Amino acid sequence: MGNKEQSMSIVLENVIVSDANSAKKVNLRIENGLISALDENPLPISPGDTVVAGEGKLALPGFVNAHTHLPMSLFRGLADDIPLDTWLREHIWPAEKRLTAADVYWGSLLSLAEMIKSGTTQVADMYFHTDSVARAVSEAHMRATISYGIVANKLDKHGKDELAMARETIERWHGAANGRIRAALSPHAIYTCGRDVWAAAIDLAHEKNVPLHTHLCETRDEVAWSLTNLGQTPVLALNEIGAFSIPTIAAHCVHVSEEEMAILAQRSVTAVHCPKSNAKLGNGHAPVVSLLRAGVNVALGTDGAASNNGQDMIEEMRMASLLSKGALEDPTALPAREVAMMATHNGAEALGAGARRISTGEDADIVLVDLSGVDTVPAYEPFSTLVYAAHGCDVTDVIVAGEFLLRDRKLFTIDEEQVKYEVNRRFGKAFAN
Amino acid sequence: MGNKEQSMSIVLENVIVSDANSAKKVNLRIENGLISALDENPLPISPGDTVVAGEGKLALPGFVNAHTHLPMSLFRGLADDIPLDTWLREHIWPAEKRLTAADVYWGSLLSLAEMIKSGTTQVADMYFHTDSVARAVSEAHMRATISYGIVANKLDKHGKDELAMARETIERWHGAANGRIRAALSPHAIYTCGRDVWAAAIDLAHEKNVPLHTHLCETRDEVAWSLTNLGQTPVLALNEIGAFSIPTIAAHCVHVSEEEMAILAQRSVTAVHCPKSNAKLGNGHAPVVSLLRAGVNVALGTDGAASNNGQDMIEEMRMASLLSKGALEDPTALPAREVAMMATHNGAEALGAGARRISTGEDADIVLVDLSGVDTVPAYEPFSTLVYAAHGCDVTDVIVAGEFLLRDRKLFTIDEEQVKYEVNRRFGKAFAN
Repeated sequence: MGNKEQSMSIVLENVIVSDANSAKKVNLRIENGLISALDENPLPISPGDTVVAGEGKLALPGFVNAHTHLPMSLFRGLADDIPLDTWLREHIWPAEKRLTAADVYWGSLLSLAEMIKSGTTQVADMYFHTDSVARAVSEAHMRATISYGIVANKLDKHGKDELAMARETIERWHGAANGRIRAALSPHAIYTCGRDVWAAAIDLAHEKNVPLHTHLCETRDEVAWSLTNLGQTPVLALNEIGAFSIPTIAAHCVHVSEEEMAILAQRSVTAVHCPKSNAKLGNGHAPVVSLLRAGVNVALGTDGAASNNGQDMIEEMRMASLLSKGALEDPTALPAREVAMMATHNGAEALGAGARRISTGEDADIVLVDLSGVDTVPAYEPFSTLVYAAHGCDVTDVIVAGEFLLRDRKLFTIDEEQVKYEVNRRFGKAFAN
Repeated sequence: MGNKEQSMSIVLENVIVSDANSAKKVNLRIENGLISALDENPLPISPGDTVVAGEGKLALPGFVNAHTHLPMSLFRGLADDIPLDTWLREHIWPAEKRLTAADVYWGSLLSLAEMIKSGTTQVADMYFHTDSVARAVSEAHMRATISYGIVANKLDKHGKDELAMARETIERWHGAANGRIRAALSPHAIYTCGRDVWAAAIDLAHEKNVPLHTHLCETRDEVAWSLTNLGQTPVLALNEIGAFSIPTIAAHCVHVSEEEMAILAQRSVTAVHCPKSNAKLGNGHAPVVSLLRAGVNVALGTDGAASNNGQDMIEEMRMASLLSKGALEDPTALPAREVAMMATHNGAEALGAGARRISTGEDADIVLVDLSGVDTVPAYEPFSTLVYAAHGCDVTDVIVAGEFLLRDRKLFTIDEEQVKYEVNRRFGKAFAN
């Protein structure tokens, strides 16, 4: 996309930006991957600038999907509506065993295409075949924290192999793609990794200076298992073993006590709220309002598309807010602006990269959402319109690190027809006849 | 659209239809407002036939939005995230007082445009300025059951005027627009209409042979009011007064006991589940699985866009299923096929019109949903894909009574730019600056 000296500059004209309780139209200049100017008055245009007419469009930091498993879009809709244990043991795990590196690559691209088209610019992923995941992320020009999901009871041959895979993923990909790719260390969960494996993983995370990304308190069964086998809850066990000495991305946090929330807040653990997945799998509803009140950094994630069954952060924001209002029988719970912060700012804080807000000097990870459709007018408050009324398909433009990934709903870095072709010839034959 | 002798015929080729546990590709012929042929083999094409290539598209009966207030899209996003009482008394009611007949007309068209674009073919509406609502429905060529919402404590001058308005609405519009418009009688709720008003309304519904459409057990406050003022719950009070001798469309039914569910099942009351509105307003979650198990006909509705904040039935299906799974901590609750039946078949049964299934002889109210996008592939089970993964904007074509209202995402009966212009110059100034 041009060399540094001739770096292309993008000007977004008359986009809506909103903070506190005001909304205003501004002009934005993007150059060298950063927001370099923001002004209510027109900005000077130079030859070669790409100028976008932003009338009626909200500009906001790209959504950060802080917990997902990109390749699981391959299992979108595989065996829905059945008990969790049957779903995992008889469908998902056997299907995962058969996955090839190529499957994982195409599945990752499928998720990334859906994500970009619904405004996501950064993800925290956990899976295996991480070279395939990272290659897809790199080619899509997305921003991502990737990790190899370690599953090992002991630090035996298998456990050491798992840790070696995790190390290799970090060494190969941390800082790759102009720094857009970062790595994390992912012991899968308290019940799938033994104490020695956790300890070795924590050491490796310290050595490589990368965060942890794990599943935490997702199900009642997990907590019960931990109490039975470790004599304490997952949060207390991980805290004792020193996990939270590393910045940690903890997915789910559905079943946590007030005492545990205080620990998460104190130890700079980010809780990733995944309301759709938690609901669909019947795992319950995370106490997200209490987590926020306790001072925990709460981000938002979709989880994999096998349990969501999409990767649309606008829908995830809406679900987060409505589920909290419904569960607490309180229409003031988790207001639009707060849930939008979770989906943008808090996620970027947790991953240590990407735009946290629309402001000069921030990374130019920006999405434009058209708020002028029959699903969104009239307009009273931009974040309310975004969270409660807009749809993924209202996202018109997506910029990551100063580069267009989507413009006027057209993908630039992914050939979506090819991706669908490759996925369809491998998976899902229901409508074939 | 042509006279009977030369009635245009539409052929949908290679669309996916699904029933029981099979999905197959079929060809459909539509003529004289009905589905006249359905075959797995190609159908003969005559000159003048409109032929639609349906590859990758699911054909299903149009969604029935069994409880809404069309003009309330004018208040979409007005004063979100505040307590219910403040929202109603300080924002919604004052705003409604100022509404003109023209406002109601444009607001209705705005909702209808959004509805058609997301696959809804039939609605049950309750509002005032019903001439404006009916005119919009008629011009949009939608199918609707409209009603004037009666609010009156006593059968005094005001109460009689309200009943006269309701009568006038029925006499003017029941059977209008080639029968696409029907009328209902709508005492607003147990707590907003006195006993004499209810009795007079029931008499009028008998006289005119139209159903009742009311709000029932929406909030805890409503039930408490009823117990305090009438000495019994809303369901028991309405049953005693004879309301359920009329086929009744009862919106919400959030706070009903098992005993009351048995009454609703026995008396042919349709409960309209409105999960998003109930969650957003903090009213709770209807016991929809129990209602279905009790044998109640349960349909699905969005409620008005002031409390939803949209009119998208795919989203409503998804929310219905996820909220039940989440609340019951049971991933098998409210499976995709059952919630799709609620959104189509059960609604059509309740309103006594429109397509209940894709089958010859049924009304040709058909929508096509493109299941080949990056949000929906791969395909394992069509209804799972529809309910958990598809979006309103995946609806490509909408046919009501054999006539296209949407084709390739283009509206035929509504000028959406004009509607947005008229709405925007009247309501919502947030982004104006």
